Parts: sequence; C-alpha cells; structure tokens
Amino acid sequence: MTELTPRLQGLLERFRDGKTVALARAISLVEDERPGFQAFLHAALARSPRAARLGLTGPPGAGKSSLVAAAATAYRRAGERVGVVAVDPTSPYSGGALLGDRIRMNDLATDPGIFIRSMATRGSLGGLATTTKEVLDLMDVFGFERVIVETVGVGQTELEITAATDTVVVVLVPESGDGIQAMKAGLMESADIFVVNKADRPGADRVVKEIRHAIHLRSGRAPDGVPAHHGVDLSRVGRTPRVAPAVPSESGGWSIPVLKTVAQSGEGVSELLEAVARHRGWLSESGELRRRRRARALNRVRDVVDRALRRVTWNHAETTAILEVGLDAIQEGAATPYSVARTILASVLKE
Amino acid sequence: MTELTPRLQGLLERFRDGKTVALARAISLVEDERPGFQAFLHAALARSPRAARLGLTGPPGAGKSSLVAAAATAYRRAGERVGVVAVDPTSPYSGGALLGDRIRMNDLATDPGIFIRSMATRGSLGGLATTTKEVLDLMDVFGFERVIVETVGVGQTELEITAATDTVVVVLVPESGDGIQAMKAGLMESADIFVVNKADRPGADRVVKEIRHAIHLRSGRAPDGVPAHHGVDLSRVGRTPRVAPAVPSESGGWSIPVLKTVAQSGEGVSELLEAVARHRGWLSESGELRRRRRARALNRVRDVVDRALRRVTWNHAETTAILEVGLDAIQEGAATPYSVARTILASVLKE
Repeated sequence: MTELTPRLQGLLERFRDGKTVALARAISLVEDERPGFQAFLHAALARSPRAARLGLTGPPGAGKSSLVAAAATAYRRAGERVGVVAVDPTSPYSGGALLGDRIRMNDLATDPGIFIRSMATRGSLGGLATTTKEVLDLMDVFGFERVIVETVGVGQTELEITAATDTVVVVLVPESGDGIQAMKAGLMESADIFVVNKADRPGADRVVKEIRHAIHLRSGRAPDGVPAHHGVDLSRVGRTPRVAPAVPSESGGWSIPVLKTVAQSGEGVSELLEAVARHRGWLSESGELRRRRRARALNRVRDVVDRALRRVTWNHAETTAILEVGLDAIQEGAATPYSVARTILASVLKE
Repeated sequence: MTELTPRLQGLLERFRDGKTVALARAISLVEDERPGFQAFLHAALARSPRAARLGLTGPPGAGKSSLVAAAATAYRRAGERVGVVAVDPTSPYSGGALLGDRIRMNDLATDPGIFIRSMATRGSLGGLATTTKEVLDLMDVFGFERVIVETVGVGQTELEITAATDTVVVVLVPESGDGIQAMKAGLMESADIFVVNKADRPGADRVVKEIRHAIHLRSGRAPDGVPAHHGVDLSRVGRTPRVAPAVPSESGGWSIPVLKTVAQSGEGVSELLEAVARHRGWLSESGELRRRRRARALNRVRDVVDRALRRVTWNHAETTAILEVGLDAIQEGAATPYSVARTILASVLKE
C-alpha cells in the first residue's frame, strides 16, 4: 500500500492512542474520501476487530433512535464504551423529524464514553453503504466495546449497512401490521431479532403474531430458512450485492425472537438487550461469527475493488475523450452504448 | 462489436420484422444475459428510439397497475401499440397482492397490440435496473408508440428505472399524507406529474395540498428546483448513480401538476393522459427530450461499462486465487481488504 503522509501518520498515532478527536478526523477523511484515506484504513484496520456490532433498522418513525439511546445508556452503565452511527435519510424533508430523535440523544452527548456520528448521505462519493461500513470498521478498531448503527429506511443501502453488523434488530410498530405481508424480503430476511416498539399502542400483539407467522412461513422454505444476509455469492456480480441463501449453521439455527418495547418508558429494553447478548453468544459458539466476519471481509474487498474500478475508469482522461465523441455518435445513430462501452473498456482493462 | 451468431442474426431479423415472439425471446436473452446479448443489443439499438416512455412509480398498493391498465386501454383505443414492463418487488410475500393487480390486466392480454412483460427481480444477474432499462430500449426500437414501465417500490433501483423514461408519474394515495414530509427525496425529485389515486377516499385534497406545498418548497431551493433525475454527473462515481442537480431548461421550467384519479372507475384518467401529452410536448419544444436522451445514453454507457468491469474482475481466475489467500490473511490480521483489493486491481487494470 501507499505510504502514509506524515500528517496521516500523526493522525494514525493519535487514533491508536484512543483520542476521540482523531477518530472524528479519521471518519471525515474516509467520508470525504480525501487523498490517502484507503492507505489510512489499511493501516488502522491492521488490528483485529473486537466490538460487538449492533444494527437497528426499520421504517421511519419506529422509534429506532430512542431504542439506540436506551441501549447505549444501558451499555454505558455497564462500563462499556459505545460508538453510534446514525445514517440519515436523503430527504431534506425528514431533517426535522430526525432532529427530534437526535435531541433525545443529547443527554448522552456529554458522556465521553460515547461517540455519536451522523452520516451525511449526500457527502459520500463512493457510495453511502461502503463509506458507512468503513466508518463502522474505524469505530470497531478504535476500541469501542459496542458499535451501534441505526439506519432510517429500508432500501438496499440500509440492508447492506446492517449486514455489516453482527446482530440486526428490525424495529416495527403496531401500525406496521398491514405491511408485514408486503415487507421487503430483504428486511424480513436480515432480522436476527424483531422488536415491536411503541407496544403500548393498540395492535401490538397482532403484529407480533403476524411477524411470528411470517418467520414460520419463511423457515419452512428450506434451504434459505435462516437469516441469510451475511452470505456473499461472488457469482452474482450485480450492481448491488445480493442476498444469498445461506447454509444453515451446523450447530443449529437461531430462533428469531419477537419482542415488545416501549422505548420512551424503557419497557422491554432489558429483554431486548438480553436477546442481543444471547444472539452474540450463539454467534460465537456456533462459529457463525467467524463465518459472518469472513463474508464481511469478502464483501469489503469487493466494495473497495468496485469503487476503485469505477474511479479509475471514469476519472480517466481517455474515457472523457471517448465519451465526448461517443455520445454524439449515439445520438446520430452511428454508435450504441455497447460499442462506446467496449472502447472505454479496452482503454482501461489489461485484456 | 462481436459478430452475431447465425441464431441471433435470425432472431434480430424476426425482431426487426416486428414479430412479438422475437421480442419476447430477445427480452429473455437480455434478462438472462445469455451469450451474445450485448452484441444483440448493439445491433438492435442501431435504430433511433421513438416511443414515448412513461414511468409510473410510488408505494405498493397505490393502484399503479390499474392506472397503467387504464392508460394502456386509452392508448390502444387511439390506435397506438403499447409495451408495458412491470417490475415486481423482490418480496415473495407480495406475490399475492401483485397477482391481483396483474389479473386486472388480463383483459388487455388478449390484444395483440399490447405487450406486457413482468421483470423477475431475482433472475437479473447484471442488476435489475440495468436489465430493465435494456428491456425498455428493446421495446422502444421494436416499434411501440408507447412504452410504460411500472415500478413497485421506491428504492434506488426503481428511481433509476423511472429515470429511463421521458415522463415520470409518481402515484400516491390519500393515506400517503403523513409520509409526504418523510418521502424519499429521490421520489419527490423524480416526479414530472403527481397523481393522488383512490381520490374518492378521505384526505385526498389534503394530500394534494401537501404535495403542492412540498413542490413549492423545493422549487424555492435554486438551483436544484427542477426535476433533476435525468441529469448525470460523471464526477460522482458512486456505486449507485446519483441524482444530480440539473440546470433549469432554458425555455423555462415545467410546472408539475398534481392530479386526482380513481383508477377503478376511470375518473381523472383522461386528465392524467392529457398532462402526460402536455409534458411530452414540453419535452420536445424545450429541447429537454434531447437533453434527457443524451443523459440516458451516458447513463447506459456507464451501466454497461460498470457491469463489464465487475464481470471481468470477479470472473477472473486470478481474482479467485488472490481472494482465497487474501481472505485467510485478513482473518489472521496479515492483510486488510485494502491490500487484497490492490492486488486484485493490479491483476486486471492496465496501469
């Protein structure tokens, strides 16, 4: 790898010394993809990951931030240091709602044992998912015992991000009932634990029942009846990583709990954290943790390679020249996207 | 480009002769990425596109299929030939609901002047968005006067697909009201026309008002106050194409209509089709159609190049060998994803 500049070498040392300011700078370096960010990541990640990674995902308004705040508070009480990454929705209209949630976290913001970072979805050049996963890695090797990521929304990006955690909690609300059947398959399949939050509202028990039914239906469909999002299938080289069916773990599967919480009052939060701990134990004992980490490493290699391929190809002077001529030719009917693409590929690839 | 095999040459001739069976075969060829599909596309697309392309998108259950059926029926009555592409959600749970919608289209299915194709989201190797755009291209040059694409869901894939049309209709329902503020920015920004369907339900007028307000808010935020999804910014080489702010068209902007329909009874459908026709006129007169087609060509070149880059890289024997050693090294702490990626890149790239 490229050598680190003296400035980045200094940042790395402060990062390794556990300076929070250095962590914040390192995250910005990665988020903005400033020169040397990959060399920095290479150097920083040459430590083994050890954080327990927890992901919370689900539709907007489900109270994920409140649950994150409750979990973070509990972990802090147990003396653990906690890193939180919140992935903002792209919508400027959601700014207000999100801010409301963030404010609840402010109690935690003065605690030096907790570090909260919002990912600005618009600033990420290399794809939000990849950047966010790299930020999770940084937090992990920085030394937090817990790294929690909260994603707002249920798109491919969010699924990819939560797949970079060890334990995925899908948060729903009693009003989600009608949506269970129509729920995106990826969300359903990514859950290690389901939570129906705001469970003091009507309909909570019905939703719990519907989720259990859906889990049951799914588990009947062997061989993809187990949470499968951590599998990576290299033969599927689509634009977005695919969710590959996983082989059931040899030590027996994980039975997905469906819990009820009221994050605002703290009800059910300790049961949730207990389930997270149990899942963590299962991951270690079953060998699933090692498998997931390996799948994650493969996924990360692929991300980094794909990003570099695009970068090299589209920042190439020759590409720009080919496109300038090629787009005119396409409009005149003298070329097609396929012939222009072929010319570009010939200019960057070895064979 | 590679020569077509005699079999594909025969298919191309039947395709050019307007045989529907050949269109169906060509679509399968592209969908399954069978050998020669790119050469076939290159040969087939060497005709100018001429179809008016209409995209309908919005949340599940908004009645998009019914609106598509109503529009297709009206266009058929006017003597136009219509191609419809329906993009199914990935969720197996939505199969039932979707089937219900499809059945409504069965009246149309016996009409030889209409061609309906469902895209199976699981079968697409090169990324659903790219494949669907290629299918739209095929339908376009095949000779349909109208090509309509319906996407279920509001993710990046769906936004990309609708951006491959000339006119994007975002379909909402009165119940969408609470979600307007939280609506994904991309969906908001991709609309050329808004429709509140099922407008006989309570709350329709409130939602219309909220959408108008949101449009107004957005248009105040110069310079990205105009529908921007057709812009392509090459400097943003992220994993997923970005929505780039567009420069307002010189001839003045398009004022986004917000309409009410009841697709089941046909209410408001003629007003919707009139708005689509007006938008089409504006596109031609303002030069925006030419601009969008050029942006689309650029986008397509990029898709094809990116797909080929991934294919070459990940199907490379050397890559497999590097990964086999590299993933072990990562788990032992002797390598990082960045050093492994670098080795892979060096084996495929010219420089």
